[in-house]
Amino acid sequence: MKRILTFIIVFALFLPCLSAMADEGMWTFDNPPTKQLRKRYNFTPTKEWLDHIRLSSVRFNDGGSGSFVSPDGLVLTNHHVARGQLQKVSTPQKDYVTTGFYARTRAEEIKAPDLELNVLISTDDVTARVQGAVKSGMDEKQALDARRGEMARIEKESLDSTGLRSDVITLYQGGEYWLYRYKKYTDVRLVFAPEEQIAFFGGDPDNFTYPRYDLDIALFHVYENDKPVQSKDYLKWNSKGPADGDLVFVSGNPGSTDRLLTMAQIENERDYLYPQALKTLNRRLNVLKTYGALGPEQARQAGTLRLGLENAYKAEVGEYKGLLDKDIIAKKQKDEDEFRKQVSGNPDWNKQFGNAWDEIAAAEKKEIGNFKQIRFRSLSRSFSGLMTYAQTIVQYVAEIKKPDPQRIDGFHDSQLESLKFSLFSPAPVYPKQEEKLLTDSLQESLEALGPDDPFIKAALNGGQPAEVVSSAISSTKLGDAAFRKSLVEGGEQAVGTSTDPLIVMARRIDPIIREQRKWTEENIAGIEATAEEQIGKARFAVYGKSSYPEATFTLRLSYGTVTGYPMNGTVAPSKTTMFGLYDRADSFDNKSPFNLPGRYVERRGKLNLSTPINFVSTCDIIGGNSGSPVVNRNGEFVGIIFDGNIESLVGRFIYDDTTNRAVAVDSAAIIEALRKLYDAGPLADELEGRPLGAAR
Amino acid sequence: MKRILTFIIVFALFLPCLSAMADEGMWTFDNPPTKQLRKRYNFTPTKEWLDHIRLSSVRFNDGGSGSFVSPDGLVLTNHHVARGQLQKVSTPQKDYVTTGFYARTRAEEIKAPDLELNVLISTDDVTARVQGAVKSGMDEKQALDARRGEMARIEKESLDSTGLRSDVITLYQGGEYWLYRYKKYTDVRLVFAPEEQIAFFGGDPDNFTYPRYDLDIALFHVYENDKPVQSKDYLKWNSKGPADGDLVFVSGNPGSTDRLLTMAQIENERDYLYPQALKTLNRRLNVLKTYGALGPEQARQAGTLRLGLENAYKAEVGEYKGLLDKDIIAKKQKDEDEFRKQVSGNPDWNKQFGNAWDEIAAAEKKEIGNFKQIRFRSLSRSFSGLMTYAQTIVQYVAEIKKPDPQRIDGFHDSQLESLKFSLFSPAPVYPKQEEKLLTDSLQESLEALGPDDPFIKAALNGGQPAEVVSSAISSTKLGDAAFRKSLVEGGEQAVGTSTDPLIVMARRIDPIIREQRKWTEENIAGIEATAEEQIGKARFAVYGKSSYPEATFTLRLSYGTVTGYPMNGTVAPSKTTMFGLYDRADSFDNKSPFNLPGRYVERRGKLNLSTPINFVSTCDIIGGNSGSPVVNRNGEFVGIIFDGNIESLVGRFIYDDTTNRAVAVDSAAIIEALRKLYDAGPLADELEGRPLGAAR
Repeated sequence: MKRILTFIIVFALFLPCLSAMADEGMWTFDNPPTKQLRKRYNFTPTKEWLDHIRLSSVRFNDGGSGSFVSPDGLVLTNHHVARGQLQKVSTPQKDYVTTGFYARTRAEEIKAPDLELNVLISTDDVTARVQGAVKSGMDEKQALDARRGEMARIEKESLDSTGLRSDVITLYQGGEYWLYRYKKYTDVRLVFAPEEQIAFFGGDPDNFTYPRYDLDIALFHVYENDKPVQSKDYLKWNSKGPADGDLVFVSGNPGSTDRLLTMAQIENERDYLYPQALKTLNRRLNVLKTYGALGPEQARQAGTLRLGLENAYKAEVGEYKGLLDKDIIAKKQKDEDEFRKQVSGNPDWNKQFGNAWDEIAAAEKKEIGNFKQIRFRSLSRSFSGLMTYAQTIVQYVAEIKKPDPQRIDGFHDSQLESLKFSLFSPAPVYPKQEEKLLTDSLQESLEALGPDDPFIKAALNGGQPAEVVSSAISSTKLGDAAFRKSLVEGGEQAVGTSTDPLIVMARRIDPIIREQRKWTEENIAGIEATAEEQIGKARFAVYGKSSYPEATFTLRLSYGTVTGYPMNGTVAPSKTTMFGLYDRADSFDNKSPFNLPGRYVERRGKLNLSTPINFVSTCDIIGGNSGSPVVNRNGEFVGIIFDGNIESLVGRFIYDDTTNRAVAVDSAAIIEALRKLYDAGPLADELEGRPLGAAR
Repeated sequence: MKRILTFIIVFALFLPCLSAMADEGMWTFDNPPTKQLRKRYNFTPTKEWLDHIRLSSVRFNDGGSGSFVSPDGLVLTNHHVARGQLQKVSTPQKDYVTTGFYARTRAEEIKAPDLELNVLISTDDVTARVQGAVKSGMDEKQALDARRGEMARIEKESLDSTGLRSDVITLYQGGEYWLYRYKKYTDVRLVFAPEEQIAFFGGDPDNFTYPRYDLDIALFHVYENDKPVQSKDYLKWNSKGPADGDLVFVSGNPGSTDRLLTMAQIENERDYLYPQALKTLNRRLNVLKTYGALGPEQARQAGTLRLGLENAYKAEVGEYKGLLDKDIIAKKQKDEDEFRKQVSGNPDWNKQFGNAWDEIAAAEKKEIGNFKQIRFRSLSRSFSGLMTYAQTIVQYVAEIKKPDPQRIDGFHDSQLESLKFSLFSPAPVYPKQEEKLLTDSLQESLEALGPDDPFIKAALNGGQPAEVVSSAISSTKLGDAAFRKSLVEGGEQAVGTSTDPLIVMARRIDPIIREQRKWTEENIAGIEATAEEQIGKARFAVYGKSSYPEATFTLRLSYGTVTGYPMNGTVAPSKTTMFGLYDRADSFDNKSPFNLPGRYVERRGKLNLSTPINFVSTCDIIGGNSGSPVVNRNGEFVGIIFDGNIESLVGRFIYDDTTNRAVAVDSAAIIEALRKLYDAGPLADELEGRPLGAAR
């Protein structure tokens, strides 16, 4: 399964378009795969159809997707997307992650502490403006700064004129730049979540596999000005789910893909980045497991992050195996060789774009030569929320003084509202867990860099990771949102004189991190950005705009067929039923993670066990797509994406429709469970568009 | 899965022992793995325990295994082992394969037309006598004949003195020879078979896979002198089935393994034998599919053979993939290198055994050089029953005149009773199907050998396969058992003057087949037999008798744990339940081969769907083990083997307990189904050892 963690822990920061075949592609709504849909499925989406799907789709900014499913602001996503918020509103006494939650009245709903939802309202092509900001004579770093500055300017102008969240995004490796404007919602209230044990039935073993039997859903109501959002742009509910062979679509926000990396980049991922990333994830996971083993409360605290890291680990193992597959590497090499041959065969193209691959290869070589510094002069993989607060505050007060276009990304005017929403979150922090994670991250950097590295000296100031962190975490006040706010409002003066030990540590390491960033931008990022823009343009020149850009956690449309696939010597069916849920539970003697919540045992007799619970389609998805609605030709909701099968993990690099499958919860199972297991008839009525009962 | 077909279509005719680890091994009852059982499981089988299991075990001579499960001669095997007999007693009007069968009274039972069951009564080591028959100065062919002659003499003496079926078998590649004496039963009457659709639920796709949900069982009563056999040697029924983690045993007749082939033999299998075998199987399957598509009666006729060929094809594809796996080949090479190094490091061993591998390699080279002649001057892969009758009769009258020790194998005095039982079977033949199969086989030989090959000239006599075979099949009387009997009784005179066209064809090709056999024995079989005996002795010298011999379709004991395994990114449970059966049927919208017999739909409400239906264990099995009982420490019946998982197919060459699993029907499901679906309470009572009801 797939959420922010797989999306955050990405390696290729330099996103690189393919001549799409089969049901491949994560398509922007401005360039839908109309030719393929007409040819393969005899279906032509109208502008109205596309607009309606787009406006019904919701981005969950903590890393997933969702959709409006009622005229009264009901939004559906995955339990594992909502899990962070569920954890944040839970207490040692009341753990909604485990017990589930259902608000029988609007008054019982619980506000999510720091959840921002985005709806994509409009998009504009701003390629000419961004590319035009680069003047002849600029070096690559200057060009990078010029493009970023122009992007900030466009975003600010748009924000000022529309009031909408405005993001300029890089598509087709810089072949295009687009301004995306979002309607933003921050008053989002929890309505329903099942027990995690049924949402994530089968646990880590079954994660990223199929057949599955999970009810991975959660429901929120969205408010604006304390009133439920009313809209005609919601997906009409189809309670039958899809049939085998149906054409379906997925509208959501795939986080990142690496399908257009050059061979030099792929080889570095395989030989350096993945092995190191897996080592780090494994360390942190062991820290969390040890902490969680101290008792039930510690296990509860570690829950969301542990799930996320286990998810990331399993995903990356699958991706890494793909890179180790000689057939896949040979296919990628062949694609690159053919592309380069086309470019070099045209003198004009060769002159404009021909050197790009070698430039990337040279930059990659430099990156690997400085791999330790780039990777370990950082605490970004500590997964410590408090340290992230400290570093963000230290950076904030420095950046905010600069003219907007010159600030580092994340601190532009257009980004401040969302940044503050996140930074001043009232969500709880778990100091002991923070201590273990931050200690391990510093220990890892110490082991890699040695005690004399300036980053280590600054971070530890002569101490050892465990004592430095223990002391800092025990006396920091950064767990208090009001304290964080006072620092931000006090500006450079307040932050510069703060004696809060985490702020002090963040101040000491900030110059080194900035220096490292500058080096990377001058030596790698700038060069690769320019080279990739050349490759992006070369791709347009050679293949035309017949394809889709790499995933960028922005709204995309995938399409495909509900269909099984060859698996493990036999064939996997396109769907599973509730019979299968009980089979798998009983097959493991109801042992964790295959145990069922009590109501599933007690109320089994009420269920129609033939009800489909999960299904698969050839739709092309990846992490970030979690919670995406699956809709049919009529634009009706028939399911919700929550995972990919094990064969889909290599999809980060290459799509193969023979076995790559997206896994979804069937709409039929949602209604069956709400009505018969959760006594949530009114909620099922709202989904099915029936007149609401008196209770709601 | 696994029955005579996988066993008949073997390539390595030269059966080759391993230092067993994990739960590996198909052990003879005279050399059980007591050390491993004590160490791993703290279990020591007593002589009584071993004798009881052995005497309760039954060999089905048409290619499977079974066991006595009541004091009144009730024998349990797989539906797919019984399928041949079910087909033979069916008619176009009454197809027991499809509808199933249940004899509510003894009077309603149906006698199987040509089913011979064997129970292993005693075993004697006759190594000294067989090896002693080879005198110094004999060449390899003479040695081969000397050993075979002595084996025939031993068998004849034993038959004459005990009246028991007596077979001398070659174990440990000729390191040992053993006389096995069997009690033989030929009055075997069908009691119960379920619908094939539930016995083989999931069909060819699910064959050789797991999780499974099959009720692959059939029950016979065994008679002697028209009275039910009474015996204390039957397996006590345990209706609970095994628990996860239990130690279990499998007692059955694995057909053949290729774990001790030399690298030269393995490479020839990979590069020549498997590719050709798969091509041939594919041709015949296409013939059967085309024939079966002509109508329901043709489909019925083709049923058993089609199932068998599909089973063989899928098994051989899995085995072939194993041979193409470079890791497996490297492991085999390493094992051989280490073994040879030990041998060559000891001057005495080196002198006695050191040349054996090179001798086999030279013989293999010769085999490949004459591959076409060896492979295509034969109709043994025609799968034509009538042609087999014709060739057997022509050979019989010639062989029977010779002194017993000089006859070719199959025609020794000790073998004649079983041979005649099979040759004079009253079972129906399907002439049109025979015609298609024999034509295809001759066409294939013609294509491979060309029209001028003496075999082709003799077989076709100037004609074309289709016309020659069509004419022959339309006028042959060999479908009539009385006619076959009259020819055999008429001896060389009757056969030599017969104008039956299939007899005429068999007469014409017989000298060429004999010549080819002689060439093979002189140039390959004799040399490899001698060399393999040396390797077998070398293995005893280096490793001691710490291992098990290759499978020889004789009684073996396997042991292991009921346990799941890593599968497809997650973990497969050790058992499945009846819930899973309904899940898989509904998941495929009840489409064939995932459709359920009517009673399973109508009576679903009566079933306890938590009842385990299939389970897996690490027991080491292969084709021929179908129908083998699975027993617990107490020697109680807890299940019946019917398949291996897809990961077990490579088990022909190498055993890996991480994923190799034997798949069995759970005893609990058998009782549940008999009582609640088939109204077969009295039969369930007989199995469970309850007082019989009045009806039986």
